[in-house]
Amino acid sequence: MDRKAVAVYPGSFDPPTLGHVDVIERALRIFGSLNIVIAFSSRKNALFSPEERKKLLEDCISHLKNVTVDFHEGLTVDYVRKIGGSVIIRGLRAVSDFEYELQMASMNRKLASEIETLIILTDEKYNYIASNTVKEVAMHGGDISALVPKVVIKALKDRLK
Amino acid sequence: MDRKAVAVYPGSFDPPTLGHVDVIERALRIFGSLNIVIAFSSRKNALFSPEERKKLLEDCISHLKNVTVDFHEGLTVDYVRKIGGSVIIRGLRAVSDFEYELQMASMNRKLASEIETLIILTDEKYNYIASNTVKEVAMHGGDISALVPKVVIKALKDRLK
Amino acid sequence: MDRKAVAVYPGSFDPPTLGHVDVIERALRIFGSLNIVIAFSSRKNALFSPEERKKLLEDCISHLKNVTVDFHEGLTVDYVRKIGGSVIIRGLRAVSDFEYELQMASMNRKLASEIETLIILTDEKYNYIASNTVKEVAMHGGDISALVPKVVIKALKDRLK
Amino acid sequence: MDRKAVAVYPGSFDPPTLGHVDVIERALRIFGSLNIVIAFSSRKNALFSPEERKKLLEDCISHLKNVTVDFHEGLTVDYVRKIGGSVIIRGLRAVSDFEYELQMASMNRKLASEIETLIILTDEKYNYIASNTVKEVAMHGGDISALVPKVVIKALKDRLK
Amino acid sequence: MDRKAVAVYPGSFDPPTLGHVDVIERALRIFGSLNIVIAFSSRKNALFSPEERKKLLEDCISHLKNVTVDFHEGLTVDYVRKIGGSVIIRGLRAVSDFEYELQMASMNRKLASEIETLIILTDEKYNYIASNTVKEVAMHGGDISALVPKVVIKALKDRLK
Amino acid sequence: MDRKAVAVYPGSFDPPTLGHVDVIERALRIFGSLNIVIAFSSRKNALFSPEERKKLLEDCISHLKNVTVDFHEGLTVDYVRKIGGSVIIRGLRAVSDFEYELQMASMNRKLASEIETLIILTDEKYNYIASNTVKEVAMHGGDISALVPKVVIKALKDRLK
Repeated sequence: MDRKAVAVYPGSFDPPTLGHVDVIERALRIFGSLNIVIAFSSRKNALFSPEERKKLLEDCISHLKNVTVDFHEGLTVDYVRKIGGSVIIRGLRAVSDFEYELQMASMNRKLASEIETLIILTDEKYNYIASNTVKEVAMHGGDISALVPKVVIKALKDRLK
Repeated sequence: MDRKAVAVYPGSFDPPTLGHVDVIERALRIFGSLNIVIAFSSRKNALFSPEERKKLLEDCISHLKNVTVDFHEGLTVDYVRKIGGSVIIRGLRAVSDFEYELQMASMNRKLASEIETLIILTDEKYNYIASNTVKEVAMHGGDISALVPKVVIKALKDRLK
Repeated sequence: MDRKAVAVYPGSFDPPTLGHVDVIERALRIFGSLNIVIAFSSRKNALFSPEERKKLLEDCISHLKNVTVDFHEGLTVDYVRKIGGSVIIRGLRAVSDFEYELQMASMNRKLASEIETLIILTDEKYNYIASNTVKEVAMHGGDISALVPKVVIKALKDRLK
Repeated sequence: MDRKAVAVYPGSFDPPTLGHVDVIERALRIFGSLNIVIAFSSRKNALFSPEERKKLLEDCISHLKNVTVDFHEGLTVDYVRKIGGSVIIRGLRAVSDFEYELQMASMNRKLASEIETLIILTDEKYNYIASNTVKEVAMHGGDISALVPKVVIKALKDRLK
Repeated sequence: MDRKAVAVYPGSFDPPTLGHVDVIERALRIFGSLNIVIAFSSRKNALFSPEERKKLLEDCISHLKNVTVDFHEGLTVDYVRKIGGSVIIRGLRAVSDFEYELQMASMNRKLASEIETLIILTDEKYNYIASNTVKEVAMHGGDISALVPKVVIKALKDRLK
Repeated sequence: MDRKAVAVYPGSFDPPTLGHVDVIERALRIFGSLNIVIAFSSRKNALFSPEERKKLLEDCISHLKNVTVDFHEGLTVDYVRKIGGSVIIRGLRAVSDFEYELQMASMNRKLASEIETLIILTDEKYNYIASNTVKEVAMHGGDISALVPKVVIKALKDRLK
């Protein structure tokens, strides 16, 4: 059989964390290639612009092949359809995230029943690393070297000065 | 890239439900082929023998190609390794199942770090169909036609007489 | 409009607790009358027989009017239909019970779509009183006077001698 | 016995969804009549004004009898008391909502111990429809016809132009 | 052995509730002394200033000895380290809070592995009292005498006039 | 102040895991000394006898001072009272365990209001290690060296032969 699932990993990535990189590496091992898409909203405040986040992500995954980074404003399923994708990848950090994912997956299925949502269960050590917490810690001068890739440490320091 | 993930869907399937079939069809769409494995324990009571469950499952998925059904007693990761698999597929019925899956996935990663666990988010209408509930309802003569494939209805009736 | 909802409160009541009595009193205030049904299974071990539980419950609610106690083996919805009921009442003790209730309500709706399930949110002080814990505490001689009605204290002592 | 419980269904309804209509129809079958109250806050941003939401809701339930729609700023229990109500109806979408409902019910009991909170367990297909998600999808041109009544589709399109 | 754990109880306390006082009394019984720290952020809106909250808390605990109240902007672990503390005390209101606490404890352990987080399980009657709900109720003239110490009732009334 | 909290850590420990040892080390750092109590029931099947578990635990903690190991059949609070303890220590593995702990703590408070329950949040890497899973894995010849102390590996192998 020659059908090949095209996988999309959507997220805010403001900024990317070691948890995100872990999901990317696992998804890549499973699907052979991966399309990362930065979902942004021009109405919401973010620390980094979509272009900056794209650059940061590309730096974080420069050791990986067959991964592309794009950004998109609007419904994720519209992006997945546009590039001919069939699978949305999500990494879970916690049980409370799970219900939010169920809600998103349910909504996405109503909007595009041909697209499946898959959850990757990542390493426990990344369970509770959220971009928001990282920003909060960085803002108060805490050590974030166990939370984000090196390139993000520098970017956060520069931005929060 | 020519790497191909071999997916395994383990479960008790005592008996198979429409929720199981839904997971199988979705996994098949994503991976192109699927290895179902009936995990059984000779120490635990089951309504159907592993051989009977294999026959029932094969009847339930006779409309699908590239799916095999096997059974195995022991650690799931041992089976996955034996057949050269790289991905364990799990369907979730409910939030409370999620933590159990986290625990299993965590244990499996400790036992075989090269094998990933993926959760498929199925249709809401299959959310709360568990094999145990099906058996309970069938035992009291309730209508299970919305819960299991036709072939299972007949098998349950014969067994519970 | 003159339609009147007939409410049924099913449970194991092995034995009844102060939490059960709280649910009964609240349901009675809302529906004006209430049908309690002791769901039992001849395959499962219980501390008290259905007849004993019926007697205990009747003693616990002797201060209340318009409440009947019955017992039934089989599907709850079959009982509700038999007596012309339209509402199943459930009291919740904890968040983890909630998913079990969702599963039961979902199954019951598939079996009898005309019957609604209603959850009564009881007083926090009864949140964590389960019949099983009560039995465990009583077995070890702990003080259960804050957990069950007086008549149940005596019955438990007699039974566990 | 002639006591009759007066049921109140409070919510933001910004805008009403098919999930809300499902709760209304079920509550009506149980209680014979229903008082819907739009809880609003002049300090919070809403897409529709209380008056617009009242009009939308009335259009959504024009096929139903014995239902009234009102709006109220302030504590829900104050409204329930004002109209002589005894029961607050809530529909649940998800497990994570459950704890919020527990907290609200607990607070309301402290404020007005004579008022009970009842949770209606709705159809799974409405489990994950939240007004906020509906607005988000509509804003990006997604198809919301499976999520809200027809009259709301039109209102959302007009408002979001 | 003469080692003595120094315990810190951090929180927003905007305003203090009876639930907070319950945690303080329990922690004091266990550790013999307690350091309360008001964590504030100059970027976030609060009803009371850090100084006002300190005064309110001191009034709420004037019947207790060996308790100090301080305030701190920044990472909690930095404060704990500064005063030579070894234990962070948290009181839990609900299951949904638990995951947030896990996330915080996990982050704090990454930042300061020598500091432990301990959760005190408080009385059920304080389970669902949150400062935000208290403010909401007070704003609408609801009775908050079962939720906060007397001195806070007065302060809230004065502030919300 | 010279009052000193005496801490008790109850559990089944059938067998002890690395997660248990982690809790013991953390509790010891906080309280200076610790009383471990093996709660057993002569009605329940266990892999190791209370005496064997006591021996295993003592071997697991031979590097620690000021820790005692005892066993007790009956209510935990009775044991805590007998030795003049004031604090029950519990380690949490998962969110679903949390509600069970709440229920136990609530029951224990009703039985002995002077005894507090404290939850220690352990390292994520021990989150999902349960004695039952360890036994299941060992029974099928899986590698348990990341799950239990060395002495337990040997004991499990001997017992499961």
